[in-house]
Amino acid sequence: MAGRQAVKVYLDLVSQACRAVLIFLKDNKIPHMVENTAIRKAQQKTPEFTKLNPMQKLPVLEDNGFVLTESDAILKYLATAYNVPDHWYPKLPQKRARVDEYTAWNHANMRTHISFIFLQEVLLPFMGQPTNPEKLKKVLADLDGTLDKLENMFLKNQAFLCGDDISLADLLAVCELMQPMCSQRDVLKDRPKLLSWRSQVQSALSDSFDEAHSVVYQIREVHG
Amino acid sequence: MAGRQAVKVYLDLVSQACRAVLIFLKDNKIPHMVENTAIRKAQQKTPEFTKLNPMQKLPVLEDNGFVLTESDAILKYLATAYNVPDHWYPKLPQKRARVDEYTAWNHANMRTHISFIFLQEVLLPFMGQPTNPEKLKKVLADLDGTLDKLENMFLKNQAFLCGDDISLADLLAVCELMQPMCSQRDVLKDRPKLLSWRSQVQSALSDSFDEAHSVVYQIREVHG
Repeated sequence: MAGRQAVKVYLDLVSQACRAVLIFLKDNKIPHMVENTAIRKAQQKTPEFTKLNPMQKLPVLEDNGFVLTESDAILKYLATAYNVPDHWYPKLPQKRARVDEYTAWNHANMRTHISFIFLQEVLLPFMGQPTNPEKLKKVLADLDGTLDKLENMFLKNQAFLCGDDISLADLLAVCELMQPMCSQRDVLKDRPKLLSWRSQVQSALSDSFDEAHSVVYQIREVHG
Repeated sequence: MAGRQAVKVYLDLVSQACRAVLIFLKDNKIPHMVENTAIRKAQQKTPEFTKLNPMQKLPVLEDNGFVLTESDAILKYLATAYNVPDHWYPKLPQKRARVDEYTAWNHANMRTHISFIFLQEVLLPFMGQPTNPEKLKKVLADLDGTLDKLENMFLKNQAFLCGDDISLADLLAVCELMQPMCSQRDVLKDRPKLLSWRSQVQSALSDSFDEAHSVVYQIREVHG
């Protein structure tokens, strides 16, 4: 489009939601610029960033003056505005509804548990603050129930979470599930079906997966 | 459509998400049947219901064999499949993205706080179980911050949360904000801008709003 600039994204790849956005942009060859915004330096709280996103959260998308927050919304917007292959976010109402169902479910289930584990196992120790092993134990059990649901209610006997091909649901889920790798915890290790799904997702994403996860691999090394 | 049956929805109107679905169906005159599923009688946990929705949660939509959970997904599916007026869930990517941004944000902000308040002020007392006044105080303060965001980052100087007309965002938000009325708490009472917004939403929804909220009004009376 004449005069149209590449989209700009503000990311910190230590955030699972930011990784999902970067992988999506790379995988779909959507021209983009990355503005690295380090959470550990509180760069999402500077006056300049706060002007852009008063929520002081990442990721943020800026598309020719249009500013958007929330990874779900960013991914769905990119899928629609940049006309990516249909499997990412199918146009057929019932197929699309399956992706919307997962992305809604993700918030109070996967996201909540995984974020808490990361807080307890990585962030608090990094800041030298006390952790809560009791609560961690409970959340790990909750995550186990959530993974049962992921396997039995979403994946079932399909290749991907919402059908035969990869969608935004798989992308968001896999980025969540990589997060505990930071503390060398593979939450899928005893789950052959989900492990095989993760391999399929990684293969479908090729290089963009490892590129986006390089920070996770680095933290895992330091933690080891 | 030939042979197409009315959609069936499994609801308990004590749930804010269920009320949003019912209002949407009524307001858009989508032919539907309501299957009342009382949470207080654990009817969402019967073997029959579990077969329908293994998550044991409400609301659930059944549209000619297609079963869907998660209120966000249900509302977006209905808006698309039943061709409702565009303002509910605009087709233009940037306008739609604003609604998706709100519905994503709602989960970890409005929903989390409001559900906790309802648990502490209505459910636990009803079951004769101990409450946590300290935590309630903290969550009420968190909700205050969330309402600041609702007002300053979503509503701003618009008539509705995502622009000039009512959308799924307003519907979900207003049903959340009515929930604390059950314990006679009007969380908007010192917020003239949000009060005026709520009036506008109520007017736009007309009778369907009060019909869906009759259970809330009843609980408020009993609580009084």
